Amino acid sequence: MTEGFGVRLRERVGERGALCVGVDPSPHLIESFEREDSVESLEYVALRLVEAATQTASCVKPQVAFFERYGARGYGVLERVIREARAGGLLVIADAKRGDIGSSNEGYAEAWLGENSPLASDAVTVSPYLGVNSLQPFVERTGTGRGLFVLAATSNPEGRSLQGARTAEGPRVFDEVLAAVARWNEPSPSVGNVGVVLGASAPRGEFSPRQVRGPILVPGVGAQGGALDQVGRLLEGVEKGTVIVSLSRALVEGGTTPRQLATTAARWRDALAESL
Amino acid sequence: MTEGFGVRLRERVGERGALCVGVDPSPHLIESFEREDSVESLEYVALRLVEAATQTASCVKPQVAFFERYGARGYGVLERVIREARAGGLLVIADAKRGDIGSSNEGYAEAWLGENSPLASDAVTVSPYLGVNSLQPFVERTGTGRGLFVLAATSNPEGRSLQGARTAEGPRVFDEVLAAVARWNEPSPSVGNVGVVLGASAPRGEFSPRQVRGPILVPGVGAQGGALDQVGRLLEGVEKGTVIVSLSRALVEGGTTPRQLATTAARWRDALAESL
Repeated sequence: MTEGFGVRLRERVGERGALCVGVDPSPHLIESFEREDSVESLEYVALRLVEAATQTASCVKPQVAFFERYGARGYGVLERVIREARAGGLLVIADAKRGDIGSSNEGYAEAWLGENSPLASDAVTVSPYLGVNSLQPFVERTGTGRGLFVLAATSNPEGRSLQGARTAEGPRVFDEVLAAVARWNEPSPSVGNVGVVLGASAPRGEFSPRQVRGPILVPGVGAQGGALDQVGRLLEGVEKGTVIVSLSRALVEGGTTPRQLATTAARWRDALAESL
Repeated sequence: MTEGFGVRLRERVGERGALCVGVDPSPHLIESFEREDSVESLEYVALRLVEAATQTASCVKPQVAFFERYGARGYGVLERVIREARAGGLLVIADAKRGDIGSSNEGYAEAWLGENSPLASDAVTVSPYLGVNSLQPFVERTGTGRGLFVLAATSNPEGRSLQGARTAEGPRVFDEVLAAVARWNEPSPSVGNVGVVLGASAPRGEFSPRQVRGPILVPGVGAQGGALDQVGRLLEGVEKGTVIVSLSRALVEGGTTPRQLATTAARWRDALAESL
């Protein structure tokens, strides 16, 4: 793992496509697998999704909340999910949305990006409410093939007011996030290691996603209401191969047997290849 | 547990004072206990701090990042820390700063505030980057004696730009957070169950903390640079007994034996009683 995360992601997307399988074993999703809500079902459902991803996707994105519900036992399952996904050639993006200050961020960075951590993933999602520059301890961890995705503009309507607020310096909050990430990626010769999360139906800002020069994670397609043509418009001019699109509920709509999951996922992978 | 969290907190502060012991077993803190960095040391240090709190404080605030560093085993320690603290009559505020959308927030709310969760705490800290109204699933969990602390204005300088940005409706981001929390607390006859985090050296906004009518958690005193007289000014007019002040590094400055920890903590408790 000497290459940077951005370069590794671009290679993987080139080989396997832009689909990122959301591993979101909520009680509702577990139910659609006709299982009772238990830690065993959590593991069963999560591993099924990883298996489908191995054949059809470049990345998986486990939603940490659904593992945390089960405390230490749920985290044991998450450790296994991360391990098996990476063994299957997938990049793992831990969807943790962590964000704190100083030494606490060092703790989180160590947890998700540390070489020897049992939760070590390829990248982690982080939240900038305590200031985008408070995320520096995560950025410092991106030198060893690991990466970050910083929340910028999300699709959910409740996020608009805060993310679109004007800072005293002028830019909107989400534009300020994009600009900070662009600065962090500046030293990289090609694609950088710090990415952003941009919702499929996020508003267009003054700072173009193209200028970020890092990976872009787009959630909220399919079940969450975003359409693929929106994504195409939002990311006009962005280098193909640095964009991944995550889906979760949409993947179980064609049934939950291994073959059905893989078929639905492959269909989405192909649709992404056409529209991005 | 039929009483609301706000009322329970006020009672506990009345009996035991406003000190909230920060349980922050960072590698640096573990070192000051003259231990190697390991999961055993994590447990040792965390339980020492809980023990000191039992004699001197109303609350403990474990920083989740430092447990997450050790994955599932760290979470096993955290479960024990939460259990022992509650058995010792302390209120436990899990400092997790979680925040996502929809069903993911339901997962986090279940993890930290669910009756049957192994991590069940009295309250959890949450982060509003995805919109303060996205936190609704947490608010809905506050009916059974559990509470929340929403990040509003923090002390760290990196947070100023985002938290002080102006929303399209006019108020600044942190004022908007305070106003939303006040609305959630409106139905409560006295103190509500939704609190806010206000840094000791946070800027003063247009919306007074007094109007929040909920618990106020003030971190950043002592080692983080905030002074007690600042806290007094910031919270002028706020009902005494609804404010808790958390300290962590300052508590080990007088030594790390059980007696030294308890002595330092008692000194801070008394200082808080005088200045608030």
